[in-house]
Amino acid sequence: MGLNSFQTSGNSPGGCQVGILGFGTVGAAVARRLSGPDSIPQLRLTHIADRRARDKRPQQSEPLSNLIWTDRFDDLLASDVDIIVEAVSHGEPVADYVRAALLAGKSVVTASRQVIAHQGAPLLLLAERQGRQLRFEAAVGGAMPIVRLLADGVAGDRVTRIDAILNATTNSVLSRLESVGGTSDEAIADACAHGYADVDPSVDLDGIDAAAKLAILCMLGFRVRVSPDQIDTASTARIGVDDLKKARQRGGTIRQIAHASYDRARSVLTAWVAPTFVSDASLFARTIGPQNAAVVGCAYGGDVTLTGLGAGGEAPAVAIISDLVAIARDRAAIVPAPVLIDPVEIKGLSELTFAEAV
Amino acid sequence: MGLNSFQTSGNSPGGCQVGILGFGTVGAAVARRLSGPDSIPQLRLTHIADRRARDKRPQQSEPLSNLIWTDRFDDLLASDVDIIVEAVSHGEPVADYVRAALLAGKSVVTASRQVIAHQGAPLLLLAERQGRQLRFEAAVGGAMPIVRLLADGVAGDRVTRIDAILNATTNSVLSRLESVGGTSDEAIADACAHGYADVDPSVDLDGIDAAAKLAILCMLGFRVRVSPDQIDTASTARIGVDDLKKARQRGGTIRQIAHASYDRARSVLTAWVAPTFVSDASLFARTIGPQNAAVVGCAYGGDVTLTGLGAGGEAPAVAIISDLVAIARDRAAIVPAPVLIDPVEIKGLSELTFAEAV
Repeated sequence: MGLNSFQTSGNSPGGCQVGILGFGTVGAAVARRLSGPDSIPQLRLTHIADRRARDKRPQQSEPLSNLIWTDRFDDLLASDVDIIVEAVSHGEPVADYVRAALLAGKSVVTASRQVIAHQGAPLLLLAERQGRQLRFEAAVGGAMPIVRLLADGVAGDRVTRIDAILNATTNSVLSRLESVGGTSDEAIADACAHGYADVDPSVDLDGIDAAAKLAILCMLGFRVRVSPDQIDTASTARIGVDDLKKARQRGGTIRQIAHASYDRARSVLTAWVAPTFVSDASLFARTIGPQNAAVVGCAYGGDVTLTGLGAGGEAPAVAIISDLVAIARDRAAIVPAPVLIDPVEIKGLSELTFAEAV
Repeated sequence: MGLNSFQTSGNSPGGCQVGILGFGTVGAAVARRLSGPDSIPQLRLTHIADRRARDKRPQQSEPLSNLIWTDRFDDLLASDVDIIVEAVSHGEPVADYVRAALLAGKSVVTASRQVIAHQGAPLLLLAERQGRQLRFEAAVGGAMPIVRLLADGVAGDRVTRIDAILNATTNSVLSRLESVGGTSDEAIADACAHGYADVDPSVDLDGIDAAAKLAILCMLGFRVRVSPDQIDTASTARIGVDDLKKARQRGGTIRQIAHASYDRARSVLTAWVAPTFVSDASLFARTIGPQNAAVVGCAYGGDVTLTGLGAGGEAPAVAIISDLVAIARDRAAIVPAPVLIDPVEIKGLSELTFAEAV
């Protein structure tokens, strides 16, 4: 039994009831936004579920403390919320939560790139079948709305190439090494202090995080099925101030670039994440700190570029609330699950064409 | 009576039937895309209406020549198309066409910035009441999906400021003066030859076109009602190579910038279009030729920037087809019309804060 017995509150006319699963950094930021001065009239936060609800609730002030709190996910499933924001910690069975929420008739907004990268397609299909929505803008790019850009913004074109900076921690580390110098460890400590760094910074620096995000972008942009494990990665951890000095002498710098291109006629996907020389004239050289950036190459309209805050601060909450707004606008919207094809061949770093690996 | 008697073709299962109104440059580009190698399975082009259908049809090859052609708009209204692409020439009563199409139960995709800038709100309300959609990505930014960015991408944030290059002709003229030199007239002739220039280039250079686009962005980003006539403009026509040389000496260049900022607490909108000094480090200085660019300042996530091909080539068709895809995905989607407020005060160029006017 949870902390509260859930009353049936009836349907909120015209609005959506929202429950948050996981009251960590991201969940708390979403809760603050939904109950703060820039709250969204169509979104009514009513429930918070967290394993440590009993400890966390007393630390909150009104109006958050007055919401319905529970330490049981099942209470959230049985509640009358329309949308569940999934913001649980690493290591929890997130895919199971998302599936259970959809099966319980809830729409779901998630920030989990691993779940979408590995099980996005079947979960999106489940959402479509349930007549509900699964949205995941926060899974890639933070406040940079790259999911919408690929899914909607360039839907009228054919995407041929994606080059992007997708990991805010690694970019912060590289741009600090570039501007302040010092060691990678100092730069990582700085990124952690600013709240950009992941639990395990090697996931960031080794390209594991960016590879998961790139797999999602390949699904959206190319409609191909690629697992993060199939994406070649080279670690940025070995890059030091000397490498950056050499790059500077060559008129550029080093960034962790996630690259993907798709030759549809031959069904060949090229995808990799690696530290890469980028010239000073490029968008990527000018992408500093926790900013993310993407260049989306299109067959008809040419390049579309997008930049935005990739992590830290309010970035994940912004993306999650954009998704909540989209669902609240049209709860009955049909979001067709992408029909994916398996590429005949997946190439990696040996096919480096975007720029030089360093 | 039109060129064809319209048969009832029955509902296309799962797809959308599309009719094009106006077979000029843009309409023809859309028609080619919808019947070309990268056609969209969910979109079936069936009808083309054009005043000069009788002359134009024989010039087309298959499959376009085999479609149903008519010279009467009423035939399109009476047909079983689900969506009408409005791509008629300047000077026609576009708003009447859009209204009539919505009243006939059609969804509408339009490229007309003037119609959306002046009558967007009532037409969007009509669309919502009719249970149909009115989409207008092509009205601003060409293949740069700024309409979606503001309406959806940053919906979870509060937009405080928009700075943008929105007129491809003027930007082409300025960047040609910068790189090649010569006179404005030569640069305009070059822009015309590349298909960027509007019918009357003064509409571009004087900022009239950008002001209409900025009014649309204010509606989407700030939810305020502002007419293009209320937006202060200064002409870029008087800028010559000498001005650009002076700007170069100061470490920058000149661009036609459309600026808007909104102080929600005081309900004060500042909006203007003017030739503006931009430093070499800025995104705008690096925006060359027919490219468009936008910096969207947000209260929580900071700046989001977007660039893309503003005009020429396939740019308008890309935007229109993105809109068609969005409608085809969910024909019954509810797109709530924006609820706009009138700002208490609208300030113009006297309040120049973004950068110096030149």
